[in-house]
Amino acid sequence: MWKRVRQRLHHSSPPAVLGLGYLVLVILGALALKLPVATTAPISMMDALFTSTSAITVTGLSVIDVETGMTFWGQLILIVLVQLGGLGLMSFAVLVFSALGMPIGLRQQTYLREDLNQTSFSSLTKMVAVIIRVVILAEVLGALALAFVFVPEFGVWRGLWHALFHSVSAFNNAGFSTFSSGLVDYATNPIVNIVVPALFIAGGLGYVVLSDMRRRRFWRGWSLHTRLMVVGSLALIVVGVGLTALLEWNNPRTLGQYASPLVRLTLAWFQGVTPRTAGFATTDIAGLHDSTSLLYMALMVIGGGPTSTAGGIKVTTMMVMLLATLAFFRRRTQIWAFGRSIGMEDVLKVMALVAIAAVLNFVGAFVLMATHDGQFLDVTFEVASAFGNVGLTRNYTPELGPLGKIVIMVMMFLGRIGPLTLGFFLATRSKPRVRYPEGQLYLG
Amino acid sequence: MWKRVRQRLHHSSPPAVLGLGYLVLVILGALALKLPVATTAPISMMDALFTSTSAITVTGLSVIDVETGMTFWGQLILIVLVQLGGLGLMSFAVLVFSALGMPIGLRQQTYLREDLNQTSFSSLTKMVAVIIRVVILAEVLGALALAFVFVPEFGVWRGLWHALFHSVSAFNNAGFSTFSSGLVDYATNPIVNIVVPALFIAGGLGYVVLSDMRRRRFWRGWSLHTRLMVVGSLALIVVGVGLTALLEWNNPRTLGQYASPLVRLTLAWFQGVTPRTAGFATTDIAGLHDSTSLLYMALMVIGGGPTSTAGGIKVTTMMVMLLATLAFFRRRTQIWAFGRSIGMEDVLKVMALVAIAAVLNFVGAFVLMATHDGQFLDVTFEVASAFGNVGLTRNYTPELGPLGKIVIMVMMFLGRIGPLTLGFFLATRSKPRVRYPEGQLYLG
Ligand SMILES: [K+]
Ligand SMILES: [K+]
Repeated sequence: MWKRVRQRLHHSSPPAVLGLGYLVLVILGALALKLPVATTAPISMMDALFTSTSAITVTGLSVIDVETGMTFWGQLILIVLVQLGGLGLMSFAVLVFSALGMPIGLRQQTYLREDLNQTSFSSLTKMVAVIIRVVILAEVLGALALAFVFVPEFGVWRGLWHALFHSVSAFNNAGFSTFSSGLVDYATNPIVNIVVPALFIAGGLGYVVLSDMRRRRFWRGWSLHTRLMVVGSLALIVVGVGLTALLEWNNPRTLGQYASPLVRLTLAWFQGVTPRTAGFATTDIAGLHDSTSLLYMALMVIGGGPTSTAGGIKVTTMMVMLLATLAFFRRRTQIWAFGRSIGMEDVLKVMALVAIAAVLNFVGAFVLMATHDGQFLDVTFEVASAFGNVGLTRNYTPELGPLGKIVIMVMMFLGRIGPLTLGFFLATRSKPRVRYPEGQLYLG
Repeated sequence: MWKRVRQRLHHSSPPAVLGLGYLVLVILGALALKLPVATTAPISMMDALFTSTSAITVTGLSVIDVETGMTFWGQLILIVLVQLGGLGLMSFAVLVFSALGMPIGLRQQTYLREDLNQTSFSSLTKMVAVIIRVVILAEVLGALALAFVFVPEFGVWRGLWHALFHSVSAFNNAGFSTFSSGLVDYATNPIVNIVVPALFIAGGLGYVVLSDMRRRRFWRGWSLHTRLMVVGSLALIVVGVGLTALLEWNNPRTLGQYASPLVRLTLAWFQGVTPRTAGFATTDIAGLHDSTSLLYMALMVIGGGPTSTAGGIKVTTMMVMLLATLAFFRRRTQIWAFGRSIGMEDVLKVMALVAIAAVLNFVGAFVLMATHDGQFLDVTFEVASAFGNVGLTRNYTPELGPLGKIVIMVMMFLGRIGPLTLGFFLATRSKPRVRYPEGQLYLG
């Protein structure tokens, strides 16, 4: 029977195998979370599956309170699932194979390429080694820095645990917290406001960008991808932080609850960078104005970088769309940036991604509205948060019935798997055999 | 001074002149509506400008009650503005030139091409003659049919006026009605439910499609454009009507207020086809479920056909996006349909249109939310309705302050002008002088 499964896998396409792999991880994670030792009170299989999906897809939406509902063991399982999801299923598999001294076959290398959206690295094992080193370095440094906050408050062991959990959760853009109120109690803490965003911004830039930044000369040595990512991310951070400060300055439920302008700026900083997939909150998201919520929905759908722990349609996708629009207005038929052109297949991929994202978000919100009560804003916000693997919430998810939870689970899963699958189709495109004459079309 | 204006116009690009022309029409229309004879009570300049913009852009959103607030003369001005807006500023100008026996210069022909998004007609004057003939034929036939409804109820002259007004409003996809409650009182009238949709569907298909249908063999003689339009429109009608029936069947504020299944189907039919830019209502739009409202927002943003009286990003744009997505999944780098390929410039134009539509709708909703109170759904719905020149309303527009009215006016104006302007950039693109090496990009 095992042999038949292996044979079937050999005949499947990598995206199907990848999807299946994530699915298996989700189920194993749910079974682990169902263990009596993991939670303080028994949880339903649905809630276990939901939490596992949320962890594996590094989303952070939750139907169980991580502080009061989970034991240390439950939190450990959760953060391991987050790390597996963030690292990517396949780079983890390669790690295991290497550790066992097994040769990495061509087939495994193909899956890994899929999972990291990566086609140009000469040695995949070497790349994974680099990734693992970067991840461990970042997470250990982050945990040590955060220990200065949590150890004085909770003692050595509990303090270190809080520090490690938040460091892993931040670098993987998961947004899970060991505190029921998230990071609201640390809204004004300088270390938390520097270390946590530094971790999730680095994790959300992506391995390709990080390795470019580490190994090559500033800007001039960077690839087109790294340049677009850095420029786009900076722009989104400025917009997110600036508009949050502007719109929420006097909102008594968010920034306005603090008198000091510096504290308000700190909150705007943290809350303005977190919608781009991190999902931590230092203030009540349900208390945001409608305008800010709409802004955050846009940021959540855009997300972070490819080959990163971030979700969404990705910053590079947004940049290509922007460049295409500019090119159009300058009456060009070629798109370029920083002296490099962008291929038409990339343009097609962007259109496919945008169309799929639009349809997914529409259908998700539509089904929730047709089957549940709830404010239009709360529903669309929660769907965008799930699709972008963000995890910010207007407290709508806990109110959902079984069907609603399934919708959110599917959104999280497809939001995480979808782009990888698209990457596969880009990598293995076929040349057209027939050339049709061009038809005339009116679009305006 | 007049000479200097003409000189400046000669140096401007056609889109700028077009935009200016529409702007002048809006202002002239507003001045006409300000005449004491037009309204039963004096109106503000802002309300006159708003109504004029709504008429010229054939949107149908209104801050004045057309039945009680306007005299016969006001209604006449309104419907003339609608007809001017629907015909297109430039085909109207050509008509005037021809009537005066003036030769149609090359420059005028360029503007006309812009306005109708049309580049292939051999004789533009001939084309305008055809358009005018089609418009008059459709509107007279429509008015005669509707007279059977309104003349028995209102007498000959008032009945004929109601019939003519609704016929012109329907063919031009304006959605204005001489009744305060719109067509709610005629929700079950068979003639209204056949004639009005027939008029606005025909008007929304576009002149190119109508002339293809009239002059060429069914399907096999049709152009790629006509085929895509017919297939896409049929699909949208089936989705719109089917889902309206499904979701609203038992809603006591809409379909559920009638006991008979046939009447409910009639309402679903009318309400399901009208969001695609017509904007008439036979039931209370504010009473629709959130899910149905979301569906209508999608339909409103898509809109009808190019070279038609409809608004939105257009059915062909949606079809290209769909085809690009399908092509991507089949690992093709060429897009085709019905044996004709679709050029890469068209793909770029679609991306530009979608990006601009997304940004416009986002900014419009964002500014309204930041400056007004109001439900998230009502605001986003009203903005989509204005952008798509639809005119369906959840009764939010009359609540707006001056800034809010300006936002809606700008949305209506850009929703109408934007695609034409994009058409210009497509028609006059330049070849790139430099070829850059292709850069590698990760998008997923
Ligand atoms: K997250
Ligand atoms: K309309």
